[in-house]
Amino acid sequence: MFRIDLNCDMGESYGAYRLGADEEIIRWVTSVNIACGFHAGDPNVMRRTVRLAMEHGAAIGAHPGLPDLAGFGRRTMALKPDEVYALVVYQIGALEAFVRSEGGRLAHVKPHGALYNMAAVRRPLAEAVAEAVRRVNPELVLYGLSGSELIRAGEQAGLRTASEVFADRSYEPDGTLTPRDLPGAVLTEEGAVAGRVIRMVKEGKVPVRDGTERPIRADTLCIHGDTPHADIHARRIREALERAGISVKKLETP
Amino acid sequence: MFRIDLNCDMGESYGAYRLGADEEIIRWVTSVNIACGFHAGDPNVMRRTVRLAMEHGAAIGAHPGLPDLAGFGRRTMALKPDEVYALVVYQIGALEAFVRSEGGRLAHVKPHGALYNMAAVRRPLAEAVAEAVRRVNPELVLYGLSGSELIRAGEQAGLRTASEVFADRSYEPDGTLTPRDLPGAVLTEEGAVAGRVIRMVKEGKVPVRDGTERPIRADTLCIHGDTPHADIHARRIREALERAGISVKKLETP
Amino acid sequence: MFRIDLNCDMGESYGAYRLGADEEIIRWVTSVNIACGFHAGDPNVMRRTVRLAMEHGAAIGAHPGLPDLAGFGRRTMALKPDEVYALVVYQIGALEAFVRSEGGRLAHVKPHGALYNMAAVRRPLAEAVAEAVRRVNPELVLYGLSGSELIRAGEQAGLRTASEVFADRSYEPDGTLTPRDLPGAVLTEEGAVAGRVIRMVKEGKVPVRDGTERPIRADTLCIHGDTPHADIHARRIREALERAGISVKKLETP
Amino acid sequence: MFRIDLNCDMGESYGAYRLGADEEIIRWVTSVNIACGFHAGDPNVMRRTVRLAMEHGAAIGAHPGLPDLAGFGRRTMALKPDEVYALVVYQIGALEAFVRSEGGRLAHVKPHGALYNMAAVRRPLAEAVAEAVRRVNPELVLYGLSGSELIRAGEQAGLRTASEVFADRSYEPDGTLTPRDLPGAVLTEEGAVAGRVIRMVKEGKVPVRDGTERPIRADTLCIHGDTPHADIHARRIREALERAGISVKKLETP
Repeated sequence: MFRIDLNCDMGESYGAYRLGADEEIIRWVTSVNIACGFHAGDPNVMRRTVRLAMEHGAAIGAHPGLPDLAGFGRRTMALKPDEVYALVVYQIGALEAFVRSEGGRLAHVKPHGALYNMAAVRRPLAEAVAEAVRRVNPELVLYGLSGSELIRAGEQAGLRTASEVFADRSYEPDGTLTPRDLPGAVLTEEGAVAGRVIRMVKEGKVPVRDGTERPIRADTLCIHGDTPHADIHARRIREALERAGISVKKLETP
Repeated sequence: MFRIDLNCDMGESYGAYRLGADEEIIRWVTSVNIACGFHAGDPNVMRRTVRLAMEHGAAIGAHPGLPDLAGFGRRTMALKPDEVYALVVYQIGALEAFVRSEGGRLAHVKPHGALYNMAAVRRPLAEAVAEAVRRVNPELVLYGLSGSELIRAGEQAGLRTASEVFADRSYEPDGTLTPRDLPGAVLTEEGAVAGRVIRMVKEGKVPVRDGTERPIRADTLCIHGDTPHADIHARRIREALERAGISVKKLETP
Repeated sequence: MFRIDLNCDMGESYGAYRLGADEEIIRWVTSVNIACGFHAGDPNVMRRTVRLAMEHGAAIGAHPGLPDLAGFGRRTMALKPDEVYALVVYQIGALEAFVRSEGGRLAHVKPHGALYNMAAVRRPLAEAVAEAVRRVNPELVLYGLSGSELIRAGEQAGLRTASEVFADRSYEPDGTLTPRDLPGAVLTEEGAVAGRVIRMVKEGKVPVRDGTERPIRADTLCIHGDTPHADIHARRIREALERAGISVKKLETP
Repeated sequence: MFRIDLNCDMGESYGAYRLGADEEIIRWVTSVNIACGFHAGDPNVMRRTVRLAMEHGAAIGAHPGLPDLAGFGRRTMALKPDEVYALVVYQIGALEAFVRSEGGRLAHVKPHGALYNMAAVRRPLAEAVAEAVRRVNPELVLYGLSGSELIRAGEQAGLRTASEVFADRSYEPDGTLTPRDLPGAVLTEEGAVAGRVIRMVKEGKVPVRDGTERPIRADTLCIHGDTPHADIHARRIREALERAGISVKKLETP
């Protein structure tokens, strides 16, 4: 039986600023990663988004990012492992307090943006993230780029991990995502996107920008929430997966 | 038998900026309130300060403040109760994650600066703080100005509270502290300071700026850590209290 | 001959966050107030907005706000006059550097949100704002609420002032705006809005929430840019004014 | 005739946080670089520091840094040239407004920390800094690491430049400074420090970490203000230079 979790970054609004179609997308995904106030999100938005996720029964994850609101956490910063450790502990705790105070349970952690990418390739940073998760709560699932250092560090720390794949992003030969500012980094043709996911789940393979393909593990698929018509895309991908016989459900569901 | 807890704000450094003589003061106090990153403190400082407190066996509290690093959380801001609720939940969670990840237990919450003062006199804000504490963890003790709305809101929410007194601050007839920018707001004569505390603990009374006196409950005494020779003052107050037959210990100790 | 300037707050986007329909509204207004990075705006947005204003020949103003991005500068903060002075100098300078570096000329200063409201009623803060403007560049025009302390402080400092009126906001008997969270604070019926402006310009009178009316001076009208269909409203107001024989042009135009 | 300018970073306090012995060091240096609020400094500190510099007749420079207060602007961030351009324009403008409002004249610009280091080796960033300076005010002198891309970009932009040398920092074979976290990066032996400067000024040579030496141009020497006894070190270096017949004066002095 094939299955996959659909996750989406949420709670990225900030003060008067609105970002993302959270109320729409939540209908199609099974887990959400909620921004924790460093790269996006604020305490009011966090509370509101936790409630939204609980109403829809989605698994809730912390989505810690770099302390760079102006850059939306997408600009690499030269942080040391102990700095990364501390900011991940901090952000998990902040989000977990909202989940607990609403009567829910925090399920996972997925780093955001540049932190995600840094932890994918730099082992000391990956270990800092994994250690932060383990020490705050070893029951949390660590989401990371499939095949990355972060997944390996999580496993080594004894954490349960979820290997994440991207349907609309191009892959490099080393398994990393093609940087957003390179041509072809983001796929837009909808049929191709769905077909790519189905192949990743059923065959465990993904095409690479250089024309070859790589083996890939797909526990969870990243659904983007900040693009035009994101909810329609989310729905179509979910429907295509289900039509292909792939069960869409959150990780903890048997 | 007379007893009192001595608490001190700590972890108020930020990045390259150092503030407070935490390593010295920790020797004389029984509980610490650790800044949570909004008015002071950063994730690295929070971790370091939690460790310091645990090494010395001090009770650890979260010290949430207004989102105003430039003003050190001392400038009143017109926040709504739901904004106050959310920023207190957030900051408790962030600090608690460090305590838990180091193997400790969060014991209390004490709002900082303008938030402390706002919650002392404005009931809706006091209730927002108390509700935040209760929903994150109803075992936490709520520290507030003795006789304030915050103490009443905490009791009404079913929380255990600790009535805080100040030895070196002047009191107004309504039980609030004299604002720092008024003359006589801060007492500096050491003998007078110690005598005042002893009277508050043993007789339950405090002199007021207008020459009268007020009844006052004293569960915990605020020790300042950011003044010159703060550690010497802390030591002398502790010694004066003990000489007067007052037992200095943290709240949870029988 | 009747005339009025139409001004609009612009450049309120921040990083990945988009706010306002600047490119549309700029077609209908004669002056713009550009956020300076404290309550909204960032250096990239400031540069882009200065260019947009110059392309359309709008008069460019600095729009300094409180250091409260999360609250969009709308939450009153207890700042001292010297703090207000310094943050106004800072923000004018930052914006002026973009104007100068693009070959333009800064024309005016209009405080934002809570700073605007604080300076409207508290004379020491009004004087701090006026003094900041005067010392940075005494040629700048100071925009303030018509009839407010800020206008008086500007005149006393020897500055040229522009008395601002609001077409879609209710007035209190003392000439201040009805707070946004009170019912009836914001008018939405379009015909009433235009008629109100025409009367303010031609007759110098404005209706008050208690049913009376007040004399009012109207040099410039605030056009909101962050509401749905803001550009359509801006166009209709401009057209209604021109149909009524009121010349819409920026202040410096003869 | 040999001459050199002594410059020091100043105004690095922030809110309640004090950093640096500005009032002492100002007596021994001839130019100061004032933090502009991104990596350190706030509007109140900027005003106070500008006044201090003017009282002592020091040349005043803007000291723009990365938007990273928590990291004191020392953590490399992956910024694009247009982002660097905009944040330099912004910060120069903010500082210049204080200088102008106090009746002074801004003389130079020196990037701070990671921005300084990034602009020293990456030409597109160096050009962005130089272009920002040129467009805000082409009379400003651009301070940069001697022999760096920033100096070359400044010259190409038609700016007057000042080649900066460091007396207490080790050099790499390519002319960059040894990173602070490597052993031997910071020299502490006072006699060696003074001798090294004298040789740089008189012979135009500097020893390199690998044992070789490099030619170097020395227009200005960086005096550190945030180390213990910084003022004593500053005084001794100045006296050693003068004893060696090197005239210590600011650049614009004939």
